[in-house]
Amino acid sequence: MPELRYDPIKTMWVIISTERAKRPTDFEPAVAVEDRSKFCPFDYGNEDKTPPEVFAIRKPGTAPDTPGWDVRVIPNKFPALRIEGELNREGVGIYDRMNGVGAHEVIVETPEHGPSLADLSVDHIAKVLKAYKERLISLRKDTRFRYILIFKNYGKRAGASLSHTHSQLIATPITPKFVREQLNVAKDYFSRKERCIFCDIIRDEMRFKERIVKIHDRYIVFAPFASSFPFEMRFYPRYHSHDFAAVPDEELPELAYALKDMLLRLKVVLNNPPYNFVLITAPSTAPRPGKPSYWGTLQYDFHWHIELIPRVTTIAGFEWGTGFYINPTPPEEAAKYLREADVKI
Amino acid sequence: MPELRYDPIKTMWVIISTERAKRPTDFEPAVAVEDRSKFCPFDYGNEDKTPPEVFAIRKPGTAPDTPGWDVRVIPNKFPALRIEGELNREGVGIYDRMNGVGAHEVIVETPEHGPSLADLSVDHIAKVLKAYKERLISLRKDTRFRYILIFKNYGKRAGASLSHTHSQLIATPITPKFVREQLNVAKDYFSRKERCIFCDIIRDEMRFKERIVKIHDRYIVFAPFASSFPFEMRFYPRYHSHDFAAVPDEELPELAYALKDMLLRLKVVLNNPPYNFVLITAPSTAPRPGKPSYWGTLQYDFHWHIELIPRVTTIAGFEWGTGFYINPTPPEEAAKYLREADVKI
Repeated sequence: MPELRYDPIKTMWVIISTERAKRPTDFEPAVAVEDRSKFCPFDYGNEDKTPPEVFAIRKPGTAPDTPGWDVRVIPNKFPALRIEGELNREGVGIYDRMNGVGAHEVIVETPEHGPSLADLSVDHIAKVLKAYKERLISLRKDTRFRYILIFKNYGKRAGASLSHTHSQLIATPITPKFVREQLNVAKDYFSRKERCIFCDIIRDEMRFKERIVKIHDRYIVFAPFASSFPFEMRFYPRYHSHDFAAVPDEELPELAYALKDMLLRLKVVLNNPPYNFVLITAPSTAPRPGKPSYWGTLQYDFHWHIELIPRVTTIAGFEWGTGFYINPTPPEEAAKYLREADVKI
Repeated sequence: MPELRYDPIKTMWVIISTERAKRPTDFEPAVAVEDRSKFCPFDYGNEDKTPPEVFAIRKPGTAPDTPGWDVRVIPNKFPALRIEGELNREGVGIYDRMNGVGAHEVIVETPEHGPSLADLSVDHIAKVLKAYKERLISLRKDTRFRYILIFKNYGKRAGASLSHTHSQLIATPITPKFVREQLNVAKDYFSRKERCIFCDIIRDEMRFKERIVKIHDRYIVFAPFASSFPFEMRFYPRYHSHDFAAVPDEELPELAYALKDMLLRLKVVLNNPPYNFVLITAPSTAPRPGKPSYWGTLQYDFHWHIELIPRVTTIAGFEWGTGFYINPTPPEEAAKYLREADVKI
């Protein structure tokens, strides 16, 4: 019998369709391997083919925009938003618009062309996370921005236009709808219960056990109760932490280990599928008249986390029009495959 | 300069990215034509290969589940929800679930294998619309259901698993999230202004003109101000009408003409692309204790409409995680191409 399940964070019902139950081998094939002969602007030695870097982790003594880097952050050459200019907000009849001010950056995760994020060493992934953190801290100083989103598209079917492993960052003058909703859910829940809703979910998942993928000292990975997609995973810090940028540098290797573990499990179970992840953290703080701007974030009732979806099914019209997803793989089954995957780090 | 635009119905900001502006010829190729040698359960003569029909428009004197039909509605052989059983709602820790009771039907739009909905005659499309209407009226009598959604996936990339032209219907015991939000937007707006928000949008679009695709006597087709996708279209009745099921039968040919016109314009401009549409109408009425159940719907402040998206771009992680879309084709340009398309009916 199929089930309807409600996600208290996304405030969405999902159909878990057991009639169509699917195992890992039922899904479409792996990420296409790109023709290596093509020129890649993210490769070592091509630093002058990209816009100048805004941040890099590089060997001491090497100059910006030359080789010597491990992780490099550059503005997107074809940005969805533009960094220059004042924000103009205006009404147009019944509608609202503003000019597209924002930042759109690419985090090139390694100079090597070939490995995916999951293949990089734990130490190297920690450097990628350090780049995420530094860009968050830096861009929050710009009071035009309300939210900074870090995400990754892996594989063409997940929207990646270049195969060289990279993540992206978009800073926007608005808080995106689904993020705003999550922030409001956390705030409402806390105001009623004086407890974090994400912490409560972790407590329940630890008790139920059946959807757990992996428990680390500081992190938990599980298949959400109301997964919208087969083999979807959520990655939460186990202890309350509202802001990704507040994770101490000393803890980044542990975080990197847990992230690598999650990505390797996915790679093994679904044979290297395309995927997307988004890192959702508390928002930038709006400037207050007469107060100095504050680079941090004040929504302490939030709980930063990563949401990961493998792109192994097609999103149909039903789902798009209604926000009501049909998922053919119960998360308990997905978690079992992922938990039992043979992963070596 | 890119723009951020807000959709007052979907309560979402969209990036209209002029830096990446795309014309119709920039998009990926047309719908793949399926190998005709495969067996198709929707063809004439194969009526016994599907579950028994629940509705059909057929020649007088022909028996159910035999040839002689023009439009045929059957239960989905692999339903996402099951029609039998009581609704059991329960809490599971912090979560909520219910068993997956609902209806999942297929509207086979013609016995002919090959033509798409756009290719059918206006009279025939009117019969398809009549089937939609009759199924809505019939399923609303089942008080377990809160919402009945009619939608169409055209082409494999839009989620269609069979190429024989068909639409689908799902009746659910919950109101899907995005539909609920639209219903609430309309109710709030009306309660403040005593005007329908959809009627106000039509007034503005008629005044601005630049996003109009086609104006018929009773219908208007336009590219929404904050289109999430290239060449997205909305199809509204021009005069306030909350419920699709209340459209009189005599008006269905006019509606069919306008729908065919929209689909042909899309086919010409984007070279027969995959697409999805959803028909969004006022909801079924919840049963009230001590009152007879009512098949109709009472949310008079709503305005039924069709939302259509061509599937010519990939939905990336950014969009999925945030509900914040990047659209490379300004709707004013899309509308110009669609308006000027050479279409003959």
